[in-house]
Amino acid sequence: MKVPRKLLSFLRKKDKFFIATHINPEADAIGSALALSMALETMGKETALFDKDTIPELYRFLPGHERFINSIPPLITLHSPLILLDCNSLKRAGLEGLSFRHSAVIDHHEPAPLCQPRYREHGRGGARPATEEDFGNIRWIEPKAAATGLMVFYLIKELGLKITSEIAINLYSAIAVDTGTFRYNNTTPEVLRVGAELIEAGASPACISNNLYETWSEGRFALLIMALNTLEIRDNIAITVVTKGMYKKTGTSAEDTENFVNFPRVLKDVKISAFFRETSDDYWKASLRSKELINVEQIAASFGGGGHKNAAGYTIKGTLESAKKSLIKAAKS
Amino acid sequence: MKVPRKLLSFLRKKDKFFIATHINPEADAIGSALALSMALETMGKETALFDKDTIPELYRFLPGHERFINSIPPLITLHSPLILLDCNSLKRAGLEGLSFRHSAVIDHHEPAPLCQPRYREHGRGGARPATEEDFGNIRWIEPKAAATGLMVFYLIKELGLKITSEIAINLYSAIAVDTGTFRYNNTTPEVLRVGAELIEAGASPACISNNLYETWSEGRFALLIMALNTLEIRDNIAITVVTKGMYKKTGTSAEDTENFVNFPRVLKDVKISAFFRETSDDYWKASLRSKELINVEQIAASFGGGGHKNAAGYTIKGTLESAKKSLIKAAKS
Repeated sequence: MKVPRKLLSFLRKKDKFFIATHINPEADAIGSALALSMALETMGKETALFDKDTIPELYRFLPGHERFINSIPPLITLHSPLILLDCNSLKRAGLEGLSFRHSAVIDHHEPAPLCQPRYREHGRGGARPATEEDFGNIRWIEPKAAATGLMVFYLIKELGLKITSEIAINLYSAIAVDTGTFRYNNTTPEVLRVGAELIEAGASPACISNNLYETWSEGRFALLIMALNTLEIRDNIAITVVTKGMYKKTGTSAEDTENFVNFPRVLKDVKISAFFRETSDDYWKASLRSKELINVEQIAASFGGGGHKNAAGYTIKGTLESAKKSLIKAAKS
Repeated sequence: MKVPRKLLSFLRKKDKFFIATHINPEADAIGSALALSMALETMGKETALFDKDTIPELYRFLPGHERFINSIPPLITLHSPLILLDCNSLKRAGLEGLSFRHSAVIDHHEPAPLCQPRYREHGRGGARPATEEDFGNIRWIEPKAAATGLMVFYLIKELGLKITSEIAINLYSAIAVDTGTFRYNNTTPEVLRVGAELIEAGASPACISNNLYETWSEGRFALLIMALNTLEIRDNIAITVVTKGMYKKTGTSAEDTENFVNFPRVLKDVKISAFFRETSDDYWKASLRSKELINVEQIAASFGGGGHKNAAGYTIKGTLESAKKSLIKAAKS
């Protein structure tokens, strides 16, 4: 992976950075941002870390997580160059409408379409050309990278900086989550070798996995069992649901549903696992996961959402039954 | 990891081998045996592969699995040197009472104690000395190796043989299962680097993970939900149960409970996950999984069972309630 020279020079020249990542952050967003911030600070730079949403409890084992702020200090947009991580538009970071004099984007997501019709069906159209709406003076986007954390790993090495144990834990967690802890098809030899280097630098796979996957409350586990009891399989789509009533019964919240969508993936004949959680009356947040060949990003985009080929999501208004039906219809088209 | 010279010379000199692994085989047993057999055959050797039990459906994606036999051809014990893989006693392979003129053991399990009192409490006693009861003319035992598959990888390299794609798939699966697909504390940099080499040699992490974890029938998933509904947490031990009646309701069998014990591990305050499945009236097979510090092998051994520090099992007679109580008592002592 080749780090753009312009990006290296930008990071070397500027003294202060405003590092932001996407709303609803997960380990790749948080870990990449923290690792880059820590590395830049060893160069004597100042950094501020921003996420519009609070860091979920689940990720508060990541070293430095407490440094995230969710409001923007006055004047920062004019004075500090922005680094946007794990997303490539101001909107995804909840920063729409603001302007930054200098900005860089580091991301492994495909740029979002400007409007629905730009999505080509059946893979026609090839690479999407840059447009004036593409955000960032410097855009380093590698859709083939397994995680933004992998890109930040190479960036830190290219800057000649040390991977400290805190950086290693953040990057290992970032890569682990985005590869399903080395189970998805983005698990390349390179991913495992970078993982090996990060263990040597101080990341503990067992400790990280324990924090990511084995810190559930009893209420959360009860919520999972309730969700699994709603399982319906229609047209090879496994649908599970969490309602507001279930949160009440188990003393849990939306945050506790993280990863629920992955459980029905174990079913052999299921092509898509869809998890609906009630956000407010008649509003549902849908999370989709697919196996190898099915592109759920396209389905999510047809409802105004986004994500990756095998992991995407969207919000929909209506009854639960209508939400299910519209998904099944979209998956067919 | 250093492969013993005696073992290399044994494999080079002999022409026919009887390769056996343990009863209730899983991916490390099956994959290691298949990989070694395939490698030896490229040297022009003949091999026969034995497992007393049938290869579970779950592992029938492993290339070559159909070559396993579960009865011993006449006279083979006198004429073919034995290679015992992923276990170190004839009993574990269901071969007790037989004698072999030449034999080698390749395993990453601690040798089993000869009788209960040999288990030292609180880690006293250090390494267990070899005794005349230790089986095998050549014993290559590496308790620090994450998997027997890792040992076989080095062995094949040391013999100067090619890791074919079929060998790579077998070894990757072996290592994946024994490290919780790179989540347990035996996930060393070496494990990830060997994983990288195996991907380059033709193993697909996504395809293997899909086969290992995502080929459940609907009945099996229904059985899981039933098992989870039996969850009880007593003294930080999460206990789940499957009865014969549940198999009947869901059209499943004991084989379908593979991995069930791991689900309650996600609970933060749980130190041991114990899964009891009914084998016949008043007989229960207990599977134990623990997080980092708890040694469930010692608990299993106190009931005449065995395994590893964090994954072990045993069989017990009695009512379900008495089986639960005796486990809780043993975990306290």
